[in-house]
Amino acid sequence: MAVYTEVSDEELATFIAGYGIGAITSCKGIAEGVENSNFLLKTERGTYILTLYEKRVAAADLPFFLGLMDHLAAAGISCPVPMHDRSGAMLGELAGKPAALVTFLDGLSLSHPAVRHSRALGAGLADLHLAGRDFPMRRPNSLSVSGWAELAARLGADADKVNPGLASLIEDELQLLQTGWPTALPDGVIHADLFPNNVFFMGDRLSGFIDFYFACNDFLAYDIAVCLNAWCFEDDRSYNITKGQALLTGYAERRPPNATEIELLPLLARGAALRFLLTRAYDWLHTPKSALVKRLDPLEYLRKLRFFQKVGSARDLGWEIAG
Amino acid sequence: MAVYTEVSDEELATFIAGYGIGAITSCKGIAEGVENSNFLLKTERGTYILTLYEKRVAAADLPFFLGLMDHLAAAGISCPVPMHDRSGAMLGELAGKPAALVTFLDGLSLSHPAVRHSRALGAGLADLHLAGRDFPMRRPNSLSVSGWAELAARLGADADKVNPGLASLIEDELQLLQTGWPTALPDGVIHADLFPNNVFFMGDRLSGFIDFYFACNDFLAYDIAVCLNAWCFEDDRSYNITKGQALLTGYAERRPPNATEIELLPLLARGAALRFLLTRAYDWLHTPKSALVKRLDPLEYLRKLRFFQKVGSARDLGWEIAG
Repeated sequence: MAVYTEVSDEELATFIAGYGIGAITSCKGIAEGVENSNFLLKTERGTYILTLYEKRVAAADLPFFLGLMDHLAAAGISCPVPMHDRSGAMLGELAGKPAALVTFLDGLSLSHPAVRHSRALGAGLADLHLAGRDFPMRRPNSLSVSGWAELAARLGADADKVNPGLASLIEDELQLLQTGWPTALPDGVIHADLFPNNVFFMGDRLSGFIDFYFACNDFLAYDIAVCLNAWCFEDDRSYNITKGQALLTGYAERRPPNATEIELLPLLARGAALRFLLTRAYDWLHTPKSALVKRLDPLEYLRKLRFFQKVGSARDLGWEIAG
Repeated sequence: MAVYTEVSDEELATFIAGYGIGAITSCKGIAEGVENSNFLLKTERGTYILTLYEKRVAAADLPFFLGLMDHLAAAGISCPVPMHDRSGAMLGELAGKPAALVTFLDGLSLSHPAVRHSRALGAGLADLHLAGRDFPMRRPNSLSVSGWAELAARLGADADKVNPGLASLIEDELQLLQTGWPTALPDGVIHADLFPNNVFFMGDRLSGFIDFYFACNDFLAYDIAVCLNAWCFEDDRSYNITKGQALLTGYAERRPPNATEIELLPLLARGAALRFLLTRAYDWLHTPKSALVKRLDPLEYLRKLRFFQKVGSARDLGWEIAG
């Protein structure tokens, strides 16, 4: 949530001159994203987001992320479009960091998405999955089951400092997921972090997706499971089945899930809850309170996990009603 | 350098509806200013900066700051212009904080201002002083001599933790300034913090001033002294007399300083150097390294103070050459 790297106006002018988008008229560091330095940049030709990739993003993954946004935009998905410099490159270097310039996307993220937004999100997610089908690059999901096991091992007994009993709960849950996690489901490019702050709306219309820096290849239905976690709980942590129904209906209208995907949805949702529980618990213990990065409450995902543990079938999540 | 207060989209929409500037099309938290939460906000009508005033800015001073920007803009100074809501008010409340909406100003602050920029700055500073003459509100400078004495007392012996011997140097300097500080010089509204990051340029043209949150009533020549500190030293901390000359020439062309102002310029520059030395030393000792606010090096101002201590007359700062 900050600007980590300062860029001099001279360096900036030289970098931007490579794009043929006119002279810079303003540049503001913005508090967007958690891991990179971002600037809202205006030139005589338009408005852009300039990103300097800090060390938490692997440089080797950048061609995947930028290539994906380029591909999705060409397929009609509204997302930041990477600018190509005069040499055709989407990735450059600025102030010693890998850097890219993407188009600015209008829209606002919603603090409290309503049922109608869940439906639009479901439809948009399916569109994203369909548009990603013929993207040729691959990036495995480092935050799937084996990544969770690694994180759980690094957390170890410290998990109990977050909440008493959490370490053994994680161990049990991980064992169950390792055993039951599917090996074959329809897969493709997933966003993997499609929280409300990464989706823009103009009024009730979904106007675009941002922040593709967790995107990877994985089961498409796992992306739905992430969204059920991120969009269908109320502030009091209760699951809103009407929102689940809307999300699943919106999705199914564009890309109907198959029977196995539907059957496994509760398990995938448990996995997604554990994924965010683990990363949040880890960050909770390893981020100083005064740090630039805002710590997110891990217990929110403990509660969600406990909800999904009790779910018998996709019907309990809203599917049967939708089907 | 961050967003301290989060604003929900619903609160935001309600607040902005009060201004009659159309629907919001985007809103980004920006890393601008050290003490407040700032957002770059676009609506159907234009681009604005929304500021939520955090606790370090005294709410009682806000009518002065906003009134001043309104006054200066009406007098032809390029600065953020506070928007008036439908009731005519420039100050509102959002997310429980005092809040104001100002116009967005194009331009970039310079990382390495050149001589020509010093000249433009000098002229712009004089214009600012002239435009402020008939502003009816008053705000004493809390960071003048008595404020420095207070800060020095709070620092006490801890100053030596910043640099050995600093405590006694501050004590001696303060005594000299308390004795020699003028009681009558041309006064008016000064910016008091006109560092390069608070001045925008479009190419070589000064396009505007921002961040009026230290503005107050004080000697106009003290504002010149602040600018000599902030604009006329090189990265190696050497004083660039050509930049000093350009700044003073630019200023004098619009508002010629009188003989006493010129005579006292070296003393005023010592005072300004001490002022930034004191606040930076205090922040250095009281800001955690990991905090949101970036700590600025106090020793930069120790070196500047030592330079000004050796200056015999305004001629050494570039004035005689300019005159």
